[in-house]
Amino acid sequence: MNTFGKAFSFTTFGESHGKAVGCVVDGVPAGLNIDSAFIQNELDRRRPGLNKFSTARKEGDKVEILSGVFEGLSTGTPIALVIFNEDQKSGDYESIKNLFRPGHADFTYFHKYGLRDYRGGGRSSARETAARVAAGAVAKLLLQSLHVKVQSGVCAIGEIEAKNYDFSHVAHSEIYALDSAVEEAQKALIKEVKEAHDSVGGVAMVRIEGAPKGLGEPIYYKLDALLADAMMGINGVKAVEIGEGCHASKLRGSQNNDAITQEGFVTNKSGGILGGISNGDVITCKVYFKPTPSIFLPQNTIDKEGHALTCNLKGRHDPCIAVRGSVVAESMAALVIADLLLLNMGSKLENLQKVYM
Amino acid sequence: MNTFGKAFSFTTFGESHGKAVGCVVDGVPAGLNIDSAFIQNELDRRRPGLNKFSTARKEGDKVEILSGVFEGLSTGTPIALVIFNEDQKSGDYESIKNLFRPGHADFTYFHKYGLRDYRGGGRSSARETAARVAAGAVAKLLLQSLHVKVQSGVCAIGEIEAKNYDFSHVAHSEIYALDSAVEEAQKALIKEVKEAHDSVGGVAMVRIEGAPKGLGEPIYYKLDALLADAMMGINGVKAVEIGEGCHASKLRGSQNNDAITQEGFVTNKSGGILGGISNGDVITCKVYFKPTPSIFLPQNTIDKEGHALTCNLKGRHDPCIAVRGSVVAESMAALVIADLLLLNMGSKLENLQKVYM
Amino acid sequence: MNTFGKAFSFTTFGESHGKAVGCVVDGVPAGLNIDSAFIQNELDRRRPGLNKFSTARKEGDKVEILSGVFEGLSTGTPIALVIFNEDQKSGDYESIKNLFRPGHADFTYFHKYGLRDYRGGGRSSARETAARVAAGAVAKLLLQSLHVKVQSGVCAIGEIEAKNYDFSHVAHSEIYALDSAVEEAQKALIKEVKEAHDSVGGVAMVRIEGAPKGLGEPIYYKLDALLADAMMGINGVKAVEIGEGCHASKLRGSQNNDAITQEGFVTNKSGGILGGISNGDVITCKVYFKPTPSIFLPQNTIDKEGHALTCNLKGRHDPCIAVRGSVVAESMAALVIADLLLLNMGSKLENLQKVYM
Amino acid sequence: MNTFGKAFSFTTFGESHGKAVGCVVDGVPAGLNIDSAFIQNELDRRRPGLNKFSTARKEGDKVEILSGVFEGLSTGTPIALVIFNEDQKSGDYESIKNLFRPGHADFTYFHKYGLRDYRGGGRSSARETAARVAAGAVAKLLLQSLHVKVQSGVCAIGEIEAKNYDFSHVAHSEIYALDSAVEEAQKALIKEVKEAHDSVGGVAMVRIEGAPKGLGEPIYYKLDALLADAMMGINGVKAVEIGEGCHASKLRGSQNNDAITQEGFVTNKSGGILGGISNGDVITCKVYFKPTPSIFLPQNTIDKEGHALTCNLKGRHDPCIAVRGSVVAESMAALVIADLLLLNMGSKLENLQKVYM
Repeated sequence: MNTFGKAFSFTTFGESHGKAVGCVVDGVPAGLNIDSAFIQNELDRRRPGLNKFSTARKEGDKVEILSGVFEGLSTGTPIALVIFNEDQKSGDYESIKNLFRPGHADFTYFHKYGLRDYRGGGRSSARETAARVAAGAVAKLLLQSLHVKVQSGVCAIGEIEAKNYDFSHVAHSEIYALDSAVEEAQKALIKEVKEAHDSVGGVAMVRIEGAPKGLGEPIYYKLDALLADAMMGINGVKAVEIGEGCHASKLRGSQNNDAITQEGFVTNKSGGILGGISNGDVITCKVYFKPTPSIFLPQNTIDKEGHALTCNLKGRHDPCIAVRGSVVAESMAALVIADLLLLNMGSKLENLQKVYM
Repeated sequence: MNTFGKAFSFTTFGESHGKAVGCVVDGVPAGLNIDSAFIQNELDRRRPGLNKFSTARKEGDKVEILSGVFEGLSTGTPIALVIFNEDQKSGDYESIKNLFRPGHADFTYFHKYGLRDYRGGGRSSARETAARVAAGAVAKLLLQSLHVKVQSGVCAIGEIEAKNYDFSHVAHSEIYALDSAVEEAQKALIKEVKEAHDSVGGVAMVRIEGAPKGLGEPIYYKLDALLADAMMGINGVKAVEIGEGCHASKLRGSQNNDAITQEGFVTNKSGGILGGISNGDVITCKVYFKPTPSIFLPQNTIDKEGHALTCNLKGRHDPCIAVRGSVVAESMAALVIADLLLLNMGSKLENLQKVYM
Repeated sequence: MNTFGKAFSFTTFGESHGKAVGCVVDGVPAGLNIDSAFIQNELDRRRPGLNKFSTARKEGDKVEILSGVFEGLSTGTPIALVIFNEDQKSGDYESIKNLFRPGHADFTYFHKYGLRDYRGGGRSSARETAARVAAGAVAKLLLQSLHVKVQSGVCAIGEIEAKNYDFSHVAHSEIYALDSAVEEAQKALIKEVKEAHDSVGGVAMVRIEGAPKGLGEPIYYKLDALLADAMMGINGVKAVEIGEGCHASKLRGSQNNDAITQEGFVTNKSGGILGGISNGDVITCKVYFKPTPSIFLPQNTIDKEGHALTCNLKGRHDPCIAVRGSVVAESMAALVIADLLLLNMGSKLENLQKVYM
Repeated sequence: MNTFGKAFSFTTFGESHGKAVGCVVDGVPAGLNIDSAFIQNELDRRRPGLNKFSTARKEGDKVEILSGVFEGLSTGTPIALVIFNEDQKSGDYESIKNLFRPGHADFTYFHKYGLRDYRGGGRSSARETAARVAAGAVAKLLLQSLHVKVQSGVCAIGEIEAKNYDFSHVAHSEIYALDSAVEEAQKALIKEVKEAHDSVGGVAMVRIEGAPKGLGEPIYYKLDALLADAMMGINGVKAVEIGEGCHASKLRGSQNNDAITQEGFVTNKSGGILGGISNGDVITCKVYFKPTPSIFLPQNTIDKEGHALTCNLKGRHDPCIAVRGSVVAESMAALVIADLLLLNMGSKLENLQKVYM
């Protein structure tokens, strides 16, 4: 239940204020160059405290490789990655140990398990996503060696939406914006909600280029279904679209079908996926994040005994989780593609013959 | 890859024009009354040819129980359900055996497998969803015995959207409409696109009432992620929303958080799910279907050898797959809940003590 | 729980006296010639009633392919195989519906599920193994295309053990004997116990030739562990040995290690498996079957209410289940190898490059 | 592939001479008292260097809990346990980096992965079993809370076999002997082979008491099959017996069936398992270990390029792996039972009603 993937899989562990978070990545083919600097760099992209649009919490997020790599190469055995926690102010949470923060998992964890680690949300904290990014970095190394490229960026902050998607701009933007034309307005909105002790939602986009035709396993491990699973499972995500997404439901077939020519698909309404299988075109996916539930305005709630009270949160939180969340979405996409690349190898008898004969 | 679920799971088989479609449902607790009339009734709701808003193809969809039931009760062993195919006009497909229909999985199946069963889309046909509805009916029997209710309906056809969601109206509507006020307009639109040899998209909604708190397994088998997986895997689905969905991304935290009182949650923006776990409130999910890719207008495509040509489809197809698709979505939701009900049993030591001590 | 295998997997269903037994085989690579006569022939080898050393129960065991094959080739989609039941004398079982037959699963199924299908043991009947043989036949077709050969035979009946293992003799023996020198004595023993209304145990051996080096996934999906799982799960099996087996525990390292030369391994004490991975040598496995629990002598038992009584069985049963069991063991071995062949494809980066670049 | 179990599962990582070995235990019900001293004590039982019958290699094997425990109780989230490696003499292995040690996995890992971590066998080293014992300790804590007891001991060293099995003696024996009457002879044999620079095989026995009736999932997750899988997957194991084991194959049905009375089973030839499901009686399993492959006599082998050479091993190794192996077998048995306890909870509708209504 803490494992994602079938062939290329990873298992995560750790809580917000425990000793460490980490993951065990299984199924990495042997012979892959495991560039630890690249992995650290991926974590740095997700790391909190980078700038004023993020939480003020600072975590070094230094990743250590515990296993699975020998002389710089993957050995085919599980790669364990661990990030020891720092900058924990568990004291911050003493005041909320008995109450359920609105919009958080406090209520549901308590009812599911009968007890909960209330420090920073425990396991339900987005801190766990650091482990996903670490695993995703390994997946990206595999994809790179096969010339598959995964990118992400932020297309909307609240109601301010990108008009153009420029993935090359993302690395230059403090909020990973896809559209420099609206970036300043997006930043201003984040600043505004932060000053109002509030938060705001946003939308991330993921783009996969160079994936071979044929990825995705019908019927219950389709590429689009697996992307939806991966994305909806990220903290705070409430909707996922593939290709034309919601808008496709308003179209006619004659508008939505992508005509095929000798040069390829004329349009890409499908988002690169037909029948749950990649068609060789660019794969696109949009991920909708709710506003950060941690806000610093008074909210009505109850405590464990059911008494009504007012929740006044303190602490340090991202005013918009979509920003750092975009990196997590990108990581999850890489993990999905890596998994499907391995699973697809047995699709044709001729592939077995290439490997074994 | 043709199996869905971990504890309450089902495996499907069969193609559009093969001998049969069917499923093996595993993990059904022993002692459940298996009402075969109910199962048949569920299939009848999805069955094609019911009225003029559906395909003209008629299939009896008579389901047979091959195993797992003794003296009317489940025995704890796998329940195999089979529906033998009828009314197959394979001849219809001779003309398309070498070309790839735009918007269909023809192209991707061919590239994945090197060959394909071109008759009616083979395995990629929505005919497979009959097996899901059969399995879902067994899941619904389990849910009923635990007082959990799963319902569905159509909230939009193209741009015509329901303003109110009345699930009690659905059974009285030929298009499973949720809002009688827009139903006639929705029907008129379906009729219009059908006459224009075109098709149109639509949106289904699923609602789950009475689910206990605590369903959903963090971190990678969350209730919302599993619903997204289940829904996005249905033929033609391009987007999935939980609760407030895409709209949540435009809100502020102070608008989106559901305050908690002694009487429960004041609002239900979360769609009954916090941190991937059910909170005891009503669970809601919207499912966006693209327009039926089979349209009867000329389309540009290529054949297996890469030659350009015009595709002129014949046959009988639903002008809007969201209508019958809503029943499939409902079935998948029931299967998700059944699975999570079983998986959640081990969440607390006290549950083991209830069962074993 | 009714599924075996991860990449090449199969799910079975059906009870002894239900409508049908069958399986859904998933993960078969596309493009494999599915020879239905071969599949039927495999079932015929396991079929009851072939001769006087088997049960007198006659079942045609005619297998039907319901899906997954098009124009004689596998399409990559699940292959459903079904065998409708015949010659059911459910009446035979009326007298035992409330009691627990010693050595059978009656007692444990009743306590696990709270009810049981008492007709012929229901799901716990060895009838289910027909479905394994059907699935195994598909696996063997895949193995044949890669020049891997799986064989089996009977090496012991009671205390009468083969001295030589001649797999080419098996097809000529009514009891699938590996050693013609002891075959008559083995037959005589079966006849003797049958006339005494008793039964006797036996040992089957499986041999796999031509498997490539590298099959088996450390640490928890090792080739030997998976074989042990597959074999011990066959009805009536109480012990499994790989290579030198139990005897290895009596040896010194200097006796048990297989020296390696440029021509290969000098001996094969390991049974072709080192560290859970195939080493390219012949893989050997011995499977120990208990005597058939159905005997026609009076036995002490209790009924559902806990009353003591004498059990006097009637019916038709194999005097030695190891004979037909050897075919099941062979089928399971083929299924294990097929699964590991697919799983091993992702072991090296160069394999991915062969397939994708 | 590095994960064992479905509901109560664990994933291990780490190599003999890497930074650490460890595991992530998933599915532990919340509310279990996690006694870290008990976990350490279990590791100490398996720890090398305890006495002269073991390897001279000394490892502290100090286990750290990284996650999943809060205020001494399990929280329902994954429990990560890590053991950092000490006393690594990688230099010892420089001389063998290019050759394949007979009886070891060097040959097969190299062919499977194209490269290998040659330091101490890397991942194939029995060092990995420390992680199993850590996970097994958590399983044992769960079993204790449900009054299930798992024990183990050594019943044979080479040809010297125990006549009586006294599990209470094991804790008092340096070689975990079950029979004090043969213990000295067993010790003398170990000493003898050690002085001869050789090694010897042995047999461990596992005993489970107090397991409820009904554990084991037909058809492909049977209790006996899962035990066989778990045991055969332990380094150096070549055979597994349940109950009467191999000997059952020599018996008649009238000798092997366990009669049932109002007081329970008269005998226990079945080893507490009927039809793959526990019958409430004591569960017994024997595990046959080959002699340690690392011996200090010259052996013929080849190197990576295929050149013949003589292998002269140095280092520190157990003269008989069955001794410490018995603790691993016990741990695996506990893990199997924990997994099946969780899986069995959904077997009957009444269990769901106990938990949910």
